[in-house]
Amino acid sequence: MATPTTNRLTPERIFNIFTAFQNTAALKTGIALDVFTAIGEGANTPALLSKKCNAAERGMRILCDYLTILDLLTKEQGRYGLTQESALFLDRRSPACLASMSGFLGNEWHQRNFFALTEAVRKGGSAGTEGDNTKPQDEVWVAFAKSMAPLTMPAAAFIAQLIGAPEGRACKVLDVAAGHGMYGITIAKKNPQAQIVAVDWPAVLEVAKENARAAGGGERVRRGPRRRL
Amino acid sequence: MATPTTNRLTPERIFNIFTAFQNTAALKTGIALDVFTAIGEGANTPALLSKKCNAAERGMRILCDYLTILDLLTKEQGRYGLTQESALFLDRRSPACLASMSGFLGNEWHQRNFFALTEAVRKGGSAGTEGDNTKPQDEVWVAFAKSMAPLTMPAAAFIAQLIGAPEGRACKVLDVAAGHGMYGITIAKKNPQAQIVAVDWPAVLEVAKENARAAGGGERVRRGPRRRL
Repeated sequence: MATPTTNRLTPERIFNIFTAFQNTAALKTGIALDVFTAIGEGANTPALLSKKCNAAERGMRILCDYLTILDLLTKEQGRYGLTQESALFLDRRSPACLASMSGFLGNEWHQRNFFALTEAVRKGGSAGTEGDNTKPQDEVWVAFAKSMAPLTMPAAAFIAQLIGAPEGRACKVLDVAAGHGMYGITIAKKNPQAQIVAVDWPAVLEVAKENARAAGGGERVRRGPRRRL
Repeated sequence: MATPTTNRLTPERIFNIFTAFQNTAALKTGIALDVFTAIGEGANTPALLSKKCNAAERGMRILCDYLTILDLLTKEQGRYGLTQESALFLDRRSPACLASMSGFLGNEWHQRNFFALTEAVRKGGSAGTEGDNTKPQDEVWVAFAKSMAPLTMPAAAFIAQLIGAPEGRACKVLDVAAGHGMYGITIAKKNPQAQIVAVDWPAVLEVAKENARAAGGGERVRRGPRRRL
């Protein structure tokens, strides 16, 4: 009797969840070696990538084959290419590039915290040796501010529109736990009459100030733990 | 002008790859606390699961909600249920349960190795502090032998059929790098005339011997690094 080959339950999906952490690692490494930008610039074979990314040809081939399986690259006749998705979001030359997110979402500290997940579920709260990241001045939020701005942009643009920023009325905006500051900065860019007050820990606000300067604004008033951008 | 909402590229898939390691952690924790078996046995609310799995109710609710998002559980009116997939592969009462794989695929040692992936790609070979796991007697292969047998079973049954084991001819089978021994053991179960010689490191063969005894066979001859099962 033939074995049915369709609609049969297989362990494939569960196996894939067991090994899902390897996908995170491959994406992180692709970003760390800037493989996506290199391919976008035309280094499309293991040999060319090896030179451009300063890594072993063998390592490059195996990594890029794996990224092809993840549909983050294409491969035809030994040449890699970007997908629409990786060209838009992972090539650093793209304005929508969100490769920097790797610095927070792919942070080893963040991953190690999940080694204590069973203990956290038992307790019903944070567990493990890495701490709970809610303490004042925790450096992890500097990493957050530096890494996560790109993911914010569509929502920030939507919010700026929603509150009528382009109408240009004078107003004050309080950005609590501002992080990278991009919510306030996006409003200020659309409305030069808006005065943004960003609140966060001092080391985090340094990142917001840099972003404000890069956006053509600038810190105007500084007072206690607040900064006006 | 309305923004098109279909066929538009979003960062969702890349975001999901960045956080994929969390899915591995949730599955591992579900298995470690034996949540799937508990739900199969009727403990289907956070309160009941908390008692049965000896964990906080809050932790149980959050974990099970996440496993529901992964389609490994169902949730209706506050009650969790197994899916067909989790009932077959994750409830320890199922003969096809492969929860033990967590001991190898979800091993922290294995996951930490991937923290060194960027360095491994640069070198074109193993990197990191965890070693290369090809050294003789490496304990990780004992974990492999103890954990990975369930995934083997469909292939082992297929191979036993392919070589005509049920025909019952006297034969010798050499199982190289036998691990859990299930390839040879499955042949021996279908053909009592088959003599299986399993080769592996001594500590690994202890696992194969246990599996042979559990399958109703037994170690008959022992010689040097080989064991006949």
